[in-house]
Amino acid sequence: MSQPVEQSAMREIPPKDDDLSAWYTAVCLKAELVSYAPVRGCVVLRPYGYALWERLQAVLDRRFKETGHQNAYFPLLIPESLLTRESEHIAGFAPEVAWVTHGGGEQLPERLAIRPTSEVIIGTMYAQWIESYRDLPVLINQWVSVMRWEKATRPFLRTLEFLWQEGHTAHATEAEAREEAERMLAIYREVAEQVVGAPVVVGEKSASERFAGAVHTYSLEALMPDGKALQVATSHELGQNFSRAYDITFADIDRTVKHVWTTSWGMSWRMLGAMIMLHGDDRGLRLPPELAPIEVLIVPITRGDQPDVIAEAHRLGALLREAGRRIKVDDRDEKRPGFKFSDGEMRGIPLRIELGARDIADGVAVVVRRDRERSDHDAKQAVPIDDVVDVTARLLRDIQENLLRQARERLERMTIRWPGIREHSSLERERFLTACRERAGLLEIPWCDVASCEAEVKATTGATTRNCVPLLPEDLASCCVVCDRPARVRARFAQSY
Amino acid sequence: MSQPVEQSAMREIPPKDDDLSAWYTAVCLKAELVSYAPVRGCVVLRPYGYALWERLQAVLDRRFKETGHQNAYFPLLIPESLLTRESEHIAGFAPEVAWVTHGGGEQLPERLAIRPTSEVIIGTMYAQWIESYRDLPVLINQWVSVMRWEKATRPFLRTLEFLWQEGHTAHATEAEAREEAERMLAIYREVAEQVVGAPVVVGEKSASERFAGAVHTYSLEALMPDGKALQVATSHELGQNFSRAYDITFADIDRTVKHVWTTSWGMSWRMLGAMIMLHGDDRGLRLPPELAPIEVLIVPITRGDQPDVIAEAHRLGALLREAGRRIKVDDRDEKRPGFKFSDGEMRGIPLRIELGARDIADGVAVVVRRDRERSDHDAKQAVPIDDVVDVTARLLRDIQENLLRQARERLERMTIRWPGIREHSSLERERFLTACRERAGLLEIPWCDVASCEAEVKATTGATTRNCVPLLPEDLASCCVVCDRPARVRARFAQSY
Repeated sequence: MSQPVEQSAMREIPPKDDDLSAWYTAVCLKAELVSYAPVRGCVVLRPYGYALWERLQAVLDRRFKETGHQNAYFPLLIPESLLTRESEHIAGFAPEVAWVTHGGGEQLPERLAIRPTSEVIIGTMYAQWIESYRDLPVLINQWVSVMRWEKATRPFLRTLEFLWQEGHTAHATEAEAREEAERMLAIYREVAEQVVGAPVVVGEKSASERFAGAVHTYSLEALMPDGKALQVATSHELGQNFSRAYDITFADIDRTVKHVWTTSWGMSWRMLGAMIMLHGDDRGLRLPPELAPIEVLIVPITRGDQPDVIAEAHRLGALLREAGRRIKVDDRDEKRPGFKFSDGEMRGIPLRIELGARDIADGVAVVVRRDRERSDHDAKQAVPIDDVVDVTARLLRDIQENLLRQARERLERMTIRWPGIREHSSLERERFLTACRERAGLLEIPWCDVASCEAEVKATTGATTRNCVPLLPEDLASCCVVCDRPARVRARFAQSY
Repeated sequence: MSQPVEQSAMREIPPKDDDLSAWYTAVCLKAELVSYAPVRGCVVLRPYGYALWERLQAVLDRRFKETGHQNAYFPLLIPESLLTRESEHIAGFAPEVAWVTHGGGEQLPERLAIRPTSEVIIGTMYAQWIESYRDLPVLINQWVSVMRWEKATRPFLRTLEFLWQEGHTAHATEAEAREEAERMLAIYREVAEQVVGAPVVVGEKSASERFAGAVHTYSLEALMPDGKALQVATSHELGQNFSRAYDITFADIDRTVKHVWTTSWGMSWRMLGAMIMLHGDDRGLRLPPELAPIEVLIVPITRGDQPDVIAEAHRLGALLREAGRRIKVDDRDEKRPGFKFSDGEMRGIPLRIELGARDIADGVAVVVRRDRERSDHDAKQAVPIDDVVDVTARLLRDIQENLLRQARERLERMTIRWPGIREHSSLERERFLTACRERAGLLEIPWCDVASCEAEVKATTGATTRNCVPLLPEDLASCCVVCDRPARVRARFAQSY
């Protein structure tokens, strides 16, 4: 049923391996996830892209609520005087802020920042709301857009405005705040791996990569096929930095007045960017079934007018829908099957069911997996109509696991771990710096945790620490692979998006 | 079980009948729906308020999707040059726009407006996306905040920033666009009445009250207890005004190129303001069960340490939760039952279940309706534990209906309809103008539909047309109650929020 002309019209995307960046942008546009907006650096999230975001939202939101969090909404605009109260925070964000200076036809007495993040406005409210230990913990999340005035932009990965969620919590003890930051990190990891199919490495940011104003920042980093890392979520222990700056105090059970400990954590639509890059291929997106707005595309194969075939396709669709599947029957009469196949592949729909008059006569439907190459022996199978519901459920589970497995295998392949070294070796140093330069992948070394060392790597190779984990027992007494100071942690270096 | 001291601490709200405005603000704050933000004219939607908004969102979103609409996200910022292309539209919104002039540490080459509404940016994208009649209709909605620089502000009713949804559709024919505008109006009406319990009058806006750039604007108006109307939703037929200004064309089936017909429609959190004012009483909110974040509050009545009573309260809670109810067991040991009763009443929780050791011994629970006065004979009833699930379901349905009925009766009482008059009567004119001045309610008169007549009423009484419906058969040859021109429509006049 190939329709070469129409197919090639759908296929105007460059091969992924030749130019990941061009491939990525083309897929985002061709699959109708986004359009460029008539505002520099902003994109429109189109219905198909938004449906992906809605599913990711639902998955996260359910987990947030199960762990006792509530949603709220805090204002978009933050007065400059308020924003500048936590000095590290404003130093970190000031260069990226968009300022409102006029409203209602008049110049405003004070500039208002469009939220780049909401610690400041939320902290100010917590100071009003929290009185006693009985009011704690406060566990609030909001789903909003934020604005950061960036230079370069790319859909999902870096745009002036982006959609995200930001959780902000306040606790009576440091231990509780730490537990919260770790709990959210675990939720993010589970969603990244089990739902998005994106394997990640989790660890703590070095001081220079830390969130402005945080005591500890933890991140999830995914590795893209070009060897660049992508930070897909962060969770921050803010200690008492914000509670001191914004005067968030409580009367503890012992009646003494203390500052609360706060956390914040966020995941943005960037996670969708990771999903696209990790799983997509030369035919377009490959969506993990858990996130796919449409799990099964049913294409009736008709020659001329065959209402029976269309009707049977809809009957099968109804059966699958009843079984809880998200399905679409593509019964457009102006498009030929080959076009619909390519269209469904570009959009990454995990399963396609082809149904023609001959199939119906034989009592079967042809089920095609999007995660397989066309030439794979099990890409396509004839399934008895009565078994379609069960087979579909099984294949979707299988595709979900397969996408994660494939991505995990690549991550493993592209992770290079240096063992501990007792003495400084200029050979290992050069090997490491070359790997950084060549974007060989995620490069894990025993590291000194000194900012100047990191800065040197960055200046000479473009790579930075993505995050760090404790040294392994066998690393004891190792020195840093880059300089000759003692190693303090294992750091993952990579160039990054 | 009355706890006078604690109760009165909860009760610091002025009586509703004495000062609706002070009552309203106090309830919004005391029920923890909102807090004032440290930004002029903005509020924070707190978790309890946001939970109400989430339920309203879910109810609307389901109906939007059932009628073929999809969600998307369009940028917050709109370049000035784009905004000014539809001249009526910008004339209407320019005075209320907030402008971003600086970003990334630099002055921007062009000012960017924070969206006051999104016809312009969405229209611009539709022009790119739509090519042929096969692409139509385009049915898109977005859930966002918008910004309008207002002078006076009041939670939910009028704030600089507010949450809403805005639907934007494009159609191949005028008839289809009209049908869409009417379909959404019907959905709004059903949600207002059946879910929020807010009876509304539906009609068309006069020319002077029309949305800037629309051909027809339809509105839902609710009447507040002080005789002022509140517009709770609008639906606009935009004709080809925006498609001409933003060049949204399509190749029709006959291959001619035409401009599309567009609509837009929106409901904001203002609907929650209507809900608060319509149903609330001197004890606080009264929430319609369909919207209530918590439908049933269970209060264990304990004297000292009675773990059995607490356990039984949780068992009953689990039973109700299993039956699909949204419940909360208030087992805080530091608060006495009387405080919890008042707290639940302030928050408008539709049903309260009181459960003490004696009740448990008798095999009953005491169920208390929030929609009844305390003195009403059926406010409180002892229900056998085994029947609680069923009785609760029945009472919640009854409360939902009762709130609508009460509000509808008041609307009827406060609606004054003038019959058609053959000759101008200065007596009727004065009666009407006095009613306008005195905020007697919704004042429906045969009206000339002339802007200068409306302007005169507004200047002398403060009332405006809320919306209009066709004349009744018996109005034929009636003249306008205000001036002596022939009547063209029946108009509802009122002062408004």
